Amino acid sequence: MDDFDDLLSANRRYADGFDRGHLAAPPARNLAVVTCMDARIDPLAILGLEPGDAHVMRNAGARVTSDVLRSLVKSVNQLGVRRIVVMHHTDCGAAKITLPALREAVTAATGHDPAGVEFHLIGDPEEALAADVAAVRDHPYLPAGLPVLALRYDVATGVAEHLLDATTA
Amino acid sequence: MDDFDDLLSANRRYADGFDRGHLAAPPARNLAVVTCMDARIDPLAILGLEPGDAHVMRNAGARVTSDVLRSLVKSVNQLGVRRIVVMHHTDCGAAKITLPALREAVTAATGHDPAGVEFHLIGDPEEALAADVAAVRDHPYLPAGLPVLALRYDVATGVAEHLLDATTA
Repeated sequence: MDDFDDLLSANRRYADGFDRGHLAAPPARNLAVVTCMDARIDPLAILGLEPGDAHVMRNAGARVTSDVLRSLVKSVNQLGVRRIVVMHHTDCGAAKITLPALREAVTAATGHDPAGVEFHLIGDPEEALAADVAAVRDHPYLPAGLPVLALRYDVATGVAEHLLDATTA
Repeated sequence: MDDFDDLLSANRRYADGFDRGHLAAPPARNLAVVTCMDARIDPLAILGLEPGDAHVMRNAGARVTSDVLRSLVKSVNQLGVRRIVVMHHTDCGAAKITLPALREAVTAATGHDPAGVEFHLIGDPEEALAADVAAVRDHPYLPAGLPVLALRYDVATGVAEHLLDATTA
């Protein structure tokens, strides 16, 4: 597929210089980071991490969905993670579109109205972040006592601001 | 929270040298990459990407769940994405544990048996990748004609091998 030649040729260069084959699967810094799919977010660079240091979960909005929770359950119970960061961000696409506008765009492009889809859009950013932290804190399949940090990354300044924190219950 | 001082101090250094405040939200290379949370995977480096180039979705196993699909629907219909990569990898945690073993580990750590949770574990890796590509290809809320590339990243060599491809229907 010519559509992906740029990526495949870049990967050949990456593999030629590859020297990380020794890394183990368990995150070296016992960390999981939940953040948004937004293209401007480079989670490793933002938090001073190297490959091998942390699990990274990403979706539209950095929302703590059932998919994120089942991933965190594996991180903690299978692979030694002991601390969790939830990092939302400014100028988030999940907060910049309404459900009617998104449904209209999808219907126009595909002929199908995604009426039944939960898009996890963000109305109030502070409420959404608090809800996501609470979802981690109260999840029954995570052990008690793990620290959870909530950050808001500013895409204009590079600052990850500490907004709240919690401990799993 | 002292538990996260390493990350917060690293972010202060990152923000001090930050020069990417000009980036726009739509991915510059019209690309979304779905991959695993595995700590050894640095999707930008592996595919020769820069911040701003691509949406990145990550979960345990790089599985195309409903959360990944609702994120892709926003990528494509809200933010201009026109090509999609699904990148599984070797030595994946989702293929290295059985459901009974995972349930036992969670129950031992929390006192709660996650009997009803769909963990999206991987039995046969090739089947799982084919199923994930098919889930993107056939999703009703993505327009027809978008190229989809399936890769398997080798954590020992850095090579992202092109295993199959498709076009959204």
